[in-house]
Amino acid sequence: MLIREATTEDWPAIWPFFHTIAAAGETFTYPLDLSFEDSRAWWLLPEPNRTVVAVDETTGTVLGTAKMNRNHLGNSAHIASASYMVDPAHGGRGVGRALAEYTVDWARRSGYLAMQFNAVVASNEHAVKLYERLGFTVIGTVPDGFRHPVHGYVGLHIMHRTL
Amino acid sequence: MLIREATTEDWPAIWPFFHTIAAAGETFTYPLDLSFEDSRAWWLLPEPNRTVVAVDETTGTVLGTAKMNRNHLGNSAHIASASYMVDPAHGGRGVGRALAEYTVDWARRSGYLAMQFNAVVASNEHAVKLYERLGFTVIGTVPDGFRHPVHGYVGLHIMHRTL
Repeated sequence: MLIREATTEDWPAIWPFFHTIAAAGETFTYPLDLSFEDSRAWWLLPEPNRTVVAVDETTGTVLGTAKMNRNHLGNSAHIASASYMVDPAHGGRGVGRALAEYTVDWARRSGYLAMQFNAVVASNEHAVKLYERLGFTVIGTVPDGFRHPVHGYVGLHIMHRTL
Repeated sequence: MLIREATTEDWPAIWPFFHTIAAAGETFTYPLDLSFEDSRAWWLLPEPNRTVVAVDETTGTVLGTAKMNRNHLGNSAHIASASYMVDPAHGGRGVGRALAEYTVDWARRSGYLAMQFNAVVASNEHAVKLYERLGFTVIGTVPDGFRHPVHGYVGLHIMHRTL
């Protein structure tokens, strides 16, 4: 698996699973009906933020993507954030973990002192466990912060780690 | 004290204390060097979000201002947020409290189920106490989340209340 800079040329490969994941409304606090173009602008971030794709080195297939960005401004600008999407067709082979590790390294190399995820859906246990394995802890939970289409209201975690 | 809709005509009256507070960098996670125009775009929010001013009913003087907005999108769109600035020259007469109560009422009337403040500087004890009196609780604190120009790194609280 190779992780490289995402470009607008990658968007047609990202869009199908981005759209599936966003429209399902189970794991992101995004509008559920973002268009092809709006999603692209939403996900592909300009410098100094970054977006990457994880690709299969043999086939070039896009397996997943991550965006990484400053979380706060001003005197909290030392805190980064990141988001990840993995094509469900390519789950279970460590793509999410590789992307998450990449973003932690990016944040550290960029001089950030910490990372904070603002909205981790509590019922997304796979993500919560992955982040915990990477050193993040839940520092707070917005009670009933997310209206899950299947589970109803669930908590919305704020997760954090120092770098 | 009257609380009414803020317009661009109010900005010259808001800007002096907005700028003083933002540039001090002690209580907001905003860029410290926002220009007159950028600050105006930052603070005066379009519908369905709102910005109001608290004015002295006799003199018309702007005493403080509040903006209120959706905090999250998609399946977390039931959570509102708000921010407040009071002219230090008019502190101690309940302007902050009146503005905060106004925004809680607005959020409730607008159908939000909760309010969440994402970044309350822990050393801003006046604000923390005010919010607690209004029913908010600290649901988490980003450790060293804010680099205070006097106190150094302090926590950044996430505060929440249901409506």
